Amino acid sequence: MDDCVFCKIIKGEIPSTLLYEDNDFFVFLDIAPIQKGHTLIVPKKHSTDIFDFKSNLGDKLISIIQKTGKAVMRGVNADGFNFGLNNGVAAGQVIMHTHFHIVPRFDNDGLKSWPDKKYKEGEMEKVGKNIIKYL
Amino acid sequence: MDDCVFCKIIKGEIPSTLLYEDNDFFVFLDIAPIQKGHTLIVPKKHSTDIFDFKSNLGDKLISIIQKTGKAVMRGVNADGFNFGLNNGVAAGQVIMHTHFHIVPRFDNDGLKSWPDKKYKEGEMEKVGKNIIKYL
Repeated sequence: MDDCVFCKIIKGEIPSTLLYEDNDFFVFLDIAPIQKGHTLIVPKKHSTDIFDFKSNLGDKLISIIQKTGKAVMRGVNADGFNFGLNNGVAAGQVIMHTHFHIVPRFDNDGLKSWPDKKYKEGEMEKVGKNIIKYL
Repeated sequence: MDDCVFCKIIKGEIPSTLLYEDNDFFVFLDIAPIQKGHTLIVPKKHSTDIFDFKSNLGDKLISIIQKTGKAVMRGVNADGFNFGLNNGVAAGQVIMHTHFHIVPRFDNDGLKSWPDKKYKEGEMEKVGKNIIKYL
């Protein structure tokens, strides 16, 4: 993908702070971190989002999250981390090359999660049925 | 795990709005949704967090995210979704049984992501070195 920033980073055409790479993944620091040590796990083969990401890379992805997550926590003395993927522009995806975030978290760091809502009586079952139609 | 809420849900001792299950995963609606259709993907075998989750379930997990993510989007007419895991109490993990979230997102739904920060000159490289020590 000629115009893809992450493809350029993977090819070394744009510099990055590389933490780890293997045949399938390229792991580096996000330049606009939510917290110091905010890390991106990026598949080398271009895909747009989780829908065209190869599911047979899943086992390796989990191993990399485990390994990288521990190293990030130790490297910045974090107490935990959020792992995540923003799938689609509506979800906050900015670079249209599949990428997974590891965001280090610290006890009482003040980052708030989104508010919980409540379903009305009977609404949850209806929503469930609507989803199951497509499964 | 006798006291684990998710183990009880998986065993059917606590009711849930089930969307999908197989030998390894149990997929149901979060009762305190960030958005309607907020879904949890939970491994049936108890693990506390990503560190003791079996990495050989990764390929299947990706397939389930793809399948469930599409169905959730269609079921609630969402435009995208956030996929995520809160690893550890500091990251907002409440139930100490590994679970992955799918949070449907809608164009301009007003859910804001966390603010981006900037590294000072040279700081990113230092943070990178600190992490690489543990990789």
